[in-house]
Amino acid sequence: MRSRIENLSNLATSVPIHRSKVKDMSAEVVDSNPYSRLMALQRMGIVENYERIRKFSVAIVGIGGVGSVAAEMLTRCGIGRLLLYDYDKVELANMNRLFFRPEQVGMTKTEAAVQTLSDINPDVVFENYTLNITTVQGFETFMSSLKNKSFDPNKEGSGVDLVLSCVDNYEARMVVNQACNELNQTWMESGVSENAVSGHIQLLVPGETACFACAPPLVVASGVDERTLKREGVCAASLPTTMGVVAGLLVQNTLKYLLNFGQVTPYLGYNALKDFFPTMEMKPNPQCSNSACLERQREYMLTKPARDAAAREKMEAEALSATECPIHAENEWNISVVDDSEVSGSDVGSSGVLPEGLTRELPTADVYTDLPASDETSTFDDLEELRKQLEALSS
Amino acid sequence: MRSRIENLSNLATSVPIHRSKVKDMSAEVVDSNPYSRLMALQRMGIVENYERIRKFSVAIVGIGGVGSVAAEMLTRCGIGRLLLYDYDKVELANMNRLFFRPEQVGMTKTEAAVQTLSDINPDVVFENYTLNITTVQGFETFMSSLKNKSFDPNKEGSGVDLVLSCVDNYEARMVVNQACNELNQTWMESGVSENAVSGHIQLLVPGETACFACAPPLVVASGVDERTLKREGVCAASLPTTMGVVAGLLVQNTLKYLLNFGQVTPYLGYNALKDFFPTMEMKPNPQCSNSACLERQREYMLTKPARDAAAREKMEAEALSATECPIHAENEWNISVVDDSEVSGSDVGSSGVLPEGLTRELPTADVYTDLPASDETSTFDDLEELRKQLEALSS
Repeated sequence: MRSRIENLSNLATSVPIHRSKVKDMSAEVVDSNPYSRLMALQRMGIVENYERIRKFSVAIVGIGGVGSVAAEMLTRCGIGRLLLYDYDKVELANMNRLFFRPEQVGMTKTEAAVQTLSDINPDVVFENYTLNITTVQGFETFMSSLKNKSFDPNKEGSGVDLVLSCVDNYEARMVVNQACNELNQTWMESGVSENAVSGHIQLLVPGETACFACAPPLVVASGVDERTLKREGVCAASLPTTMGVVAGLLVQNTLKYLLNFGQVTPYLGYNALKDFFPTMEMKPNPQCSNSACLERQREYMLTKPARDAAAREKMEAEALSATECPIHAENEWNISVVDDSEVSGSDVGSSGVLPEGLTRELPTADVYTDLPASDETSTFDDLEELRKQLEALSS
Repeated sequence: MRSRIENLSNLATSVPIHRSKVKDMSAEVVDSNPYSRLMALQRMGIVENYERIRKFSVAIVGIGGVGSVAAEMLTRCGIGRLLLYDYDKVELANMNRLFFRPEQVGMTKTEAAVQTLSDINPDVVFENYTLNITTVQGFETFMSSLKNKSFDPNKEGSGVDLVLSCVDNYEARMVVNQACNELNQTWMESGVSENAVSGHIQLLVPGETACFACAPPLVVASGVDERTLKREGVCAASLPTTMGVVAGLLVQNTLKYLLNFGQVTPYLGYNALKDFFPTMEMKPNPQCSNSACLERQREYMLTKPARDAAAREKMEAEALSATECPIHAENEWNISVVDDSEVSGSDVGSSGVLPEGLTRELPTADVYTDLPASDETSTFDDLEELRKQLEALSS
């Protein structure tokens, strides 16, 4: 009798559940609350207001090995709205990366993604665009979808808070760069090498950081048509591990950027063979070939004094409130937190690496080290110098 | 008529496909080959013989936020056999991490995992153990399943090639440690902090590296019963990003270990707030409380001279063959690869961090920096010194 009741109750709990929409994110600690572990970030002092995430729109361009996992992470985090762009279909050859399942073979990647993601979290608003952004028509739809403010009519700037580029070729990256420069839209770029064992993420703020055209990849600097390098039928290697790590680092920095915690890393590389993670910063190129970038650079320089003053004021206010109310008040171990920005600083720049793009088209990540290492920092104030290095390398 | 044919053919391709088993891994570049992007690792000179992966058995203990993603990655990579251990059921509160879906709520994690994974890749042999390894009965089953050699009767040592610990508490880690010390089984440990913004992976080779009992976590060193810290109802924060990154780093190092490429990292930390990745090595503690560990240490010391000689011989042979046949023969960019082990070396040890376990029970990853930083390297030859530091910290 007892075992029968147990069997029946087991059966009852294993009946498929489609989770219903949730009006407000609750911090209640019960098994049935899909947001309890995220809202706990507030109690732990990591995020001030987690529920703000429902206000944000993120566009993901390219729903492949990195983009699909990034989309799943943001969906599970309860992002407000996701815009997904891809023109490709799911193939069995994609099964060595996370996310897509064999029964989705033949569906478009955008449709398959929305099918899976809306099952996982029906609270997220999805928009799927099955199009190629590098075509004239595709670019127009891409631009107007980014400008559309119907999700949050009071939002400043464009209709999205961040664009994530998860595409696998140079041409598509240049199109995302063009759109974001025109719209003054902050975006993050990601990539994985053709040999599958290195990758990177990069933050691009128009006018403030180098744009994708400011520091052209090696092959372009040397005059080779990049499009000939990404040939049909040439099979690049890929690994779910590398792509999972890159997607995780990308969305982690997305969360830090949107929810205002930790430090958003300007550029982060991942060398899987050595578990080496170079970081650096890149300033914009005053001779950039992209006219929209030059316009953003001018605007940025004009507003710089006011922005610096506001940032200083904010930092002072934060320093003051931190003195008044320490984050970890219940410090039973008597631990004092010391500033370890020096540790982080020594990580930045000790590597002597060159900007993103240099590795992507090349056989191994080790070519990084073939270039003269800078002892101090990897910030390139003068992109001309970099260009000369590239030319010297490819001549 | 034309659009009707198009509709019909679209429909035909979108009919659910359950992928059939594949006898041999093919490197053929066609959309229908699930292994083409993995076999490409051979052509790219990264892995010598990728198909060897089908010979390997990996045991994953704990199928939660890290373990489930690790299992999916290994499944998609075409691992030979996966042994999965967990006693928990899927809850809606798990939906903020990757892998499990709302319709699986109520199923055991092991059953839900095998359901999803065998759909993704029917070539993998799955064994699911719904049990708690910290019980007497559970430990016995755990041990005998690791010893079972029916998958590869000629295999040396135990029946598995690697154990991945993806559990969320100290007690279970100590049980995995006990089993692996007894079986002389190499394993990897992983963990994510309760505030969700840091994590680590660690390689443990009995006798050669510190075991989990060699360097006890802070709370144990200070005499607090750790079990009281992992209370029911206390809701730790978690993020799909941090867990995805840790799972990716864990399985990447698993692939490097099994398929013999790159460098397996002994310990790798991940500080998500700063994108900082400390590395270090830990030698075994000659005063370790675990008697099986002491036995492995004795064996290791006895066989060390012979092993060193063999390693030297192998390195010399590899250096010779590398001179005869460079990996990147078609070097159209005239790029010469220089040794950048110094770069990697400067990353190791500059951080002054302390061993795994110190952070897990503490509020933030910043406590790392509260401890005296070593200028040279983080290898602790004398664990006694570390123990004194721990005691000083908690007194």
